[in-house]
Amino acid sequence: MKTLGIDIGGTEVKIGAASSVGKISVLDSISFESDPVKLFENISRLVGNAGSYAVAGVAVAGDVDRAQGVVRFSPNLGWKNLPLANIARKILRRPVIVENDANAAAVGAWSLDCAERYGDMVCITMGTGIGGGIIVGGQLYRGSGGSAGEIGHLTYEPSGIKCSCGNRGCFERYIGRDAIVSRFRDISGGRKPPCPSEITPENVCALAARGNRAAIETWRETGLILGVLLADIVNIFNPAAMVITGGISRASRFFLPAAIREMKSRAFDCPSAGVRVFVSKNAAVLGVAGAALLAARKDFR
Amino acid sequence: MKTLGIDIGGTEVKIGAASSVGKISVLDSISFESDPVKLFENISRLVGNAGSYAVAGVAVAGDVDRAQGVVRFSPNLGWKNLPLANIARKILRRPVIVENDANAAAVGAWSLDCAERYGDMVCITMGTGIGGGIIVGGQLYRGSGGSAGEIGHLTYEPSGIKCSCGNRGCFERYIGRDAIVSRFRDISGGRKPPCPSEITPENVCALAARGNRAAIETWRETGLILGVLLADIVNIFNPAAMVITGGISRASRFFLPAAIREMKSRAFDCPSAGVRVFVSKNAAVLGVAGAALLAARKDFR
Repeated sequence: MKTLGIDIGGTEVKIGAASSVGKISVLDSISFESDPVKLFENISRLVGNAGSYAVAGVAVAGDVDRAQGVVRFSPNLGWKNLPLANIARKILRRPVIVENDANAAAVGAWSLDCAERYGDMVCITMGTGIGGGIIVGGQLYRGSGGSAGEIGHLTYEPSGIKCSCGNRGCFERYIGRDAIVSRFRDISGGRKPPCPSEITPENVCALAARGNRAAIETWRETGLILGVLLADIVNIFNPAAMVITGGISRASRFFLPAAIREMKSRAFDCPSAGVRVFVSKNAAVLGVAGAALLAARKDFR
Repeated sequence: MKTLGIDIGGTEVKIGAASSVGKISVLDSISFESDPVKLFENISRLVGNAGSYAVAGVAVAGDVDRAQGVVRFSPNLGWKNLPLANIARKILRRPVIVENDANAAAVGAWSLDCAERYGDMVCITMGTGIGGGIIVGGQLYRGSGGSAGEIGHLTYEPSGIKCSCGNRGCFERYIGRDAIVSRFRDISGGRKPPCPSEITPENVCALAARGNRAAIETWRETGLILGVLLADIVNIFNPAAMVITGGISRASRFFLPAAIREMKSRAFDCPSAGVRVFVSKNAAVLGVAGAALLAARKDFR
């Protein structure tokens, strides 16, 4: 049985397929369209009369009611209380499940990066926000209301920067995209950086690769803060693996060594010695893969 | 089938029984004895030739290898790599399982305080240390190496007070027994408090009950910090309930309202509106109950 996987982000929508043995292929990607009917008509055209796909899984950046197939709230996509599963089901003419994108990425990472070996795994998505997906006993852990896994909103500085979530001092405010840009600005001290005028994590990564000290220090400090988060995760979950993905993870060679050192200096010896920490080798397809797997396999609750 | 439950603390060892329908009764308590053979001979004498107990569960304050029945390390009891299940099995002449005491308390709270209704629950044990036990889908969550649930060692202040675990700024250092004593000293500003010369959380609780402002403020500040921890737990686990137990919980009327307010102001709306936070009504028997239940029921992994 082949399965469709659809990963809806604020700019790009990826469409892929999982074969009956779990092999993932990305079919295509299209631009995001905020009208969900138009969006799924575009997807339907792309997939063609793909009668061979039995079910479809949709990953969405936002708070999702999995049981009802409703997107409760997605600030990035501009959707609120949208019955996405119903809409997609009518257009695609097959059963559809809807899942949060960080959760889908965790299932993708568990399957593709960990070969489903580790029962307990945490996936950390580093981008504009810091997302999390938790695998417990080989199952996605959603919590009592489907909101679990918001590891980017663990508190790093209790009286720190106000976060959009309502808390103060969330890790997301210190290791997310905006924080990396501000940190580079602070460290480079207003000197004009030898790069395009717009500072982005991608530029800061390129600068670090050319030996720019402010850029290297930016990533090292980011790594130290990520290390505190990794230690927290190790002490609570004692996971077998922590998989890092998302756009920021492309700079991992500049921040991950510092993060792992800091994690090991803080977390309990036994669980921190046992945990594998690595960057996903399948970052581009994790959402598509997870969405397809969640749709295909009844053993994921 | 009746089951023995034994809860070994650094001062007191409690012995209890669970009936075949899960009713818990505490049989007796004896003093701790660091020689495990002598300790279990004392327990055996107390239990008598209790042929009607099919199995025994032992809760131990320390890091436990559940599969091997070994106490890996217990600083409080002075045990290291002790094959406790084997020793106890020979003396009690019945199968024995060994479990960490915070984990056992969580199972006890899940059964006695929550009537096994909530699939996802976190139990917080507040005493000298801050312990945690996590129930996921009605199962105790142990992590890949049995060390999960160390919520007292989540980081509250990344460059804060050095903790015995190796980390800096653990919550335990800010809301554990010693922290409450220091906080009261600081707030009362060296003025001789109108209480016995030794300051303890119990005294600070009694003072608060008599309207002492420094004592009341001590508990309020403790509650605000606990609120940050509760928000972290809500954002990661989205639990249906958080149950608080341990000696410090007896002062809950002075700290829990502030903690819940702070939690609600910080955590995501949906999971924080849905979570029940309360003090265990069965604090005295949670360890005994959890140990007995874990021994009796094969459905706890």
